Amino acid sequence: MGTILERINDPGILKKLPLHELVQLAKEIRELMVNVISGRGGHLASNLGVVELTIALHRAFETPNDKIVWDVGHQCYTHKILTGRKESFPSIRSFGGLSGFPKREESPFDVCSVGHSSTSLSAALGIALARDLQKKNFKVAAVIGDGALTGGMALEALNYAGHINTDIIVVLNDNEMSISRNVGGMTSYLARLRTDPKYFRLKEDLELVLGRIPAIGKTVVRSAERIKDRLKYLLVPGVLFEELGFTYLGPIDGHNIAGLGEMLNQAKGLKGPVLLHVVTQKGKGVSYAEKEPHRFHGIGPFDKETGKTGNKTGLTTPDRTYSEIFGSTLMEQAALNNSIVAITAAMVAGTGLEKFFEQFPSRSFDVGIAEQHAVTMAAGLALEGFKPVVAIYSTFLQRAYDQILEDVCMQKLPVVFALDRAGLVGDDGETHNGIFDFAYLRPMPEIMIMAPSNGPELASMLKTALSLNCPVALRYPRDKTTPPGANLPHIYPGQGELLKEGKDILILAVGSMVAPALEAHRLLSAKGISSCVINARFVKPLDRELISSWAKICKRVLTVEEHLISGGFGSAVLEMLEEEQLNNIYFKRMGLTDPFTGHGNRDILLSLYQLTGEEIALQAEKMCATAQEPE
Amino acid sequence: MGTILERINDPGILKKLPLHELVQLAKEIRELMVNVISGRGGHLASNLGVVELTIALHRAFETPNDKIVWDVGHQCYTHKILTGRKESFPSIRSFGGLSGFPKREESPFDVCSVGHSSTSLSAALGIALARDLQKKNFKVAAVIGDGALTGGMALEALNYAGHINTDIIVVLNDNEMSISRNVGGMTSYLARLRTDPKYFRLKEDLELVLGRIPAIGKTVVRSAERIKDRLKYLLVPGVLFEELGFTYLGPIDGHNIAGLGEMLNQAKGLKGPVLLHVVTQKGKGVSYAEKEPHRFHGIGPFDKETGKTGNKTGLTTPDRTYSEIFGSTLMEQAALNNSIVAITAAMVAGTGLEKFFEQFPSRSFDVGIAEQHAVTMAAGLALEGFKPVVAIYSTFLQRAYDQILEDVCMQKLPVVFALDRAGLVGDDGETHNGIFDFAYLRPMPEIMIMAPSNGPELASMLKTALSLNCPVALRYPRDKTTPPGANLPHIYPGQGELLKEGKDILILAVGSMVAPALEAHRLLSAKGISSCVINARFVKPLDRELISSWAKICKRVLTVEEHLISGGFGSAVLEMLEEEQLNNIYFKRMGLTDPFTGHGNRDILLSLYQLTGEEIALQAEKMCATAQEPE
Repeated sequence: MGTILERINDPGILKKLPLHELVQLAKEIRELMVNVISGRGGHLASNLGVVELTIALHRAFETPNDKIVWDVGHQCYTHKILTGRKESFPSIRSFGGLSGFPKREESPFDVCSVGHSSTSLSAALGIALARDLQKKNFKVAAVIGDGALTGGMALEALNYAGHINTDIIVVLNDNEMSISRNVGGMTSYLARLRTDPKYFRLKEDLELVLGRIPAIGKTVVRSAERIKDRLKYLLVPGVLFEELGFTYLGPIDGHNIAGLGEMLNQAKGLKGPVLLHVVTQKGKGVSYAEKEPHRFHGIGPFDKETGKTGNKTGLTTPDRTYSEIFGSTLMEQAALNNSIVAITAAMVAGTGLEKFFEQFPSRSFDVGIAEQHAVTMAAGLALEGFKPVVAIYSTFLQRAYDQILEDVCMQKLPVVFALDRAGLVGDDGETHNGIFDFAYLRPMPEIMIMAPSNGPELASMLKTALSLNCPVALRYPRDKTTPPGANLPHIYPGQGELLKEGKDILILAVGSMVAPALEAHRLLSAKGISSCVINARFVKPLDRELISSWAKICKRVLTVEEHLISGGFGSAVLEMLEEEQLNNIYFKRMGLTDPFTGHGNRDILLSLYQLTGEEIALQAEKMCATAQEPE
Repeated sequence: MGTILERINDPGILKKLPLHELVQLAKEIRELMVNVISGRGGHLASNLGVVELTIALHRAFETPNDKIVWDVGHQCYTHKILTGRKESFPSIRSFGGLSGFPKREESPFDVCSVGHSSTSLSAALGIALARDLQKKNFKVAAVIGDGALTGGMALEALNYAGHINTDIIVVLNDNEMSISRNVGGMTSYLARLRTDPKYFRLKEDLELVLGRIPAIGKTVVRSAERIKDRLKYLLVPGVLFEELGFTYLGPIDGHNIAGLGEMLNQAKGLKGPVLLHVVTQKGKGVSYAEKEPHRFHGIGPFDKETGKTGNKTGLTTPDRTYSEIFGSTLMEQAALNNSIVAITAAMVAGTGLEKFFEQFPSRSFDVGIAEQHAVTMAAGLALEGFKPVVAIYSTFLQRAYDQILEDVCMQKLPVVFALDRAGLVGDDGETHNGIFDFAYLRPMPEIMIMAPSNGPELASMLKTALSLNCPVALRYPRDKTTPPGANLPHIYPGQGELLKEGKDILILAVGSMVAPALEAHRLLSAKGISSCVINARFVKPLDRELISSWAKICKRVLTVEEHLISGGFGSAVLEMLEEEQLNNIYFKRMGLTDPFTGHGNRDILLSLYQLTGEEIALQAEKMCATAQEPE
């Protein structure tokens, strides 16, 4: 353990350290991060990129009185290490350990709990306005990546900041990539700022020119005056930000602690909104992470010397991830049908679309962190006869709630939504759980909602979804499963699958809960309880006939879903039974009873919420212990 | 009726008309609009502002083969009149008549059904990409207001357009205001473009300067070359758009048909994304609307000679709108409590906040069309101890679904959401109905959801909401009600109100449906049926004790809500009864069975969906005709 880091129990001490010790500290922090993350996985590249920036921020500001608001928050490891959490750092992202994101409950230095992108400017502006109203005078800084800056709400806030003109420092952490490759006019603009030497020389050039002009003549002088007057707006780098009302500083090397300190102090002295453009390198200081920053964005365990991982999924079975099966099936279908196009929002690799993007570049659209735009652009493509498949994690698709409803469903357009990472996501924790999707999608008109219970079903459902002329949502977990073989089950719209006949209780499961339901069936059989098991397949429309007929026989119904208990699949079945006037059913819903599930291994969390075969059997047994005709 | 308009059955004919006839046509269209809207209300000022622009667009483009995508769409009246709907125009916004927004079902000229703001660029980009893939060669134009341009998803699309570089023409209809006053750095930037003569003269000035430079010397020449190279980026007006990858044209007078035609033809000839900046005047051509464009944005019937309306609400009773009661109550509370601040998103007048904004300017924030930013900025204010009240129509709050969930509810912050226009909105129709809010809010953690049944309850609920230390949603209809008097009912968190005792059936109503439920009680009493009526007040948490106890007595429960039947209040009660294991209740939910409610008078629509006292009584009677212990 390095000796400098041992002395850092509070970031206040950073101000007293000489530069060479700060450089050593950065080295020690990188070592700690690589040691921990190589062992258990996490966000590495982005955290390696902001070590110096984080040190400089805590030196320049009086935290926690001054407020540093992190955008997204997965780059907060150095921040956590510097703010009293270095001992607990090895527990990061594990059950009961530190969160991988800022959490207010964890530390007063974590100003704002966060997990989704592009929120920091809005939150920081709110904090700054509160400060102004209370006539306090602390500083507020938002640290946002260039990828997050293209999210609509960050742009809304950027626009508003120029309007209200309160003191706020936006630190643009420009590492030339978001989670995937970055896109958009803003990106190429930033690239020009970074790389075009004209941007740096232009101002002095023009001053030279203008300095000579008075010799030329009267008309020209007047013109020159006007031009000088416009200099501030037109001839400094960062004109785009200046036009929106910001003072632009930079670009500056984000790995130079001394330089960063000077700039931050300069920014602190300015009135109104300031944008400090910091250029950092993802993976900085660790050669394999510098070379492949995408791979080390979010990564599982790896060899800390070489950066190598075992086989890609760490599996000895032939199992593959749902994401991979989605991607390969979509490729097969796209080869047969030219109207299929794929759209994602900075999740090309995560959603299994990398090969699709290589194979069909003209039919592939990564819009960057811009879920709203992704969905309505898909609507536009569908209007012209295409079959857009929008692949976005369940939790991030929440950003496009209104667009799914108003632009796709109300127009009855055949857009397919592939909701990856639905259910519990594990280590990322509650801000990333996809446990609201059944509830938010169910009331939307026209949409069909499916959830596969394994790989072959996912492949078949995707085919069915592409054949339908209506909006479709397909949701599947962050998990591995059996890959599809030659014989796929046929999926008929709105039809569930009767897996086991039984007469004592109907276990109605959906998606990832079908396997535990079958396990429960085995356990119940051993106890002499006859359970019927249905794989719902469709949450909307439900298979009314199948469900009703077995509900009438069993008189007891237990629904199981990897989704919040409120408004989900179980509620849909409750509504259906009411509509069918089946009032005398003994009914229980199993699912997530609390949206604050914490973080950690997905299996631990599923057990915690009783979403296992054993617990389902236990619940079913309890229900069967009561009279079949309940009081 | 003017003679030119009579000849326009298809916009194709516009190309053949001489300029003076087009000017006459614009006059006739304005007369028709004023005649119709003065009689029945509608969006007037924005439509008066785009008459010439719409004529010019249909002349420049070959519609419907070329695609014009309207943003928001409430400015589509001239478009409808020119595209075969002039005869049916007087039916606009009435039940069974033309929609006040573009609707694909209505006409092939309506490319995209719309109602919410800031979607046009995304939809148009999708259409343009589809065109490119199919190697077709029609033109695509998006017409977007300066207000809508500050919406996050429009900025996402603007950014993406610069990236993909497809041919698309964005017509920026800059009328210097959105629905309320416009805000943001973008707005002041546009204002500078419009008004600062330097922007127009700078380019020629600099060319003059640069022309002289070669005489000066070698160094300077080199500098000058560099400067010339940067001219495109830095010295034309619209640099902000140019930086994002657009070719900027304008600004141009939006009431000059010939000038618009030239510019549109120029835009059509350019490659890649083009932004044409058109300056229009809201209310143009009608003096009272020019003077008070805000008042004539969305207006009820008025005198077409003077522009005068009767008394503001057109009421002879002392009734006031829910919006007014919300606004005045909030003012009273804000006078007592300095921590209360109000936030809205371009809905200051609509949400009843005009006086609040005058009285408490430093505690009032109109962020423009930027719902996402509004909600997370409120979270920031709450983090510092403030009590933010976010007043946004239910339908537009859909835009901030993710921010309510992740930034407010997950952080357990005491933000109060005032959801105005909840339920059926009437003339605006289905894109504006607030009928999803119970469903989308219920699963969110920590939030309390209330709905008042009248003005006094709204006032009291707002007080209660402000006293709570958690997120609260308060939803109320677009309607009039009795104003609060001296004695307000006390609202206890989570407690409903028993209005009528009864033993045959429990009618559980919420919000606007409480009054019809009481009417049903009267009708049922006359028939000898004893109905219990409970005003739920809280949708979350439900008053379990009160509801369960009367459900056990009555054994029949009928829920009534002005909300979509799926996922709403009735479903919440179903879930609760399941949790309480009350399985043998004969249960029915009444509510909106179809999200496509159409447009027209709210009372007509409520009748259509059986949400009246008579229909509730009829349903209750039917239920009571079955045995109390259902099979």
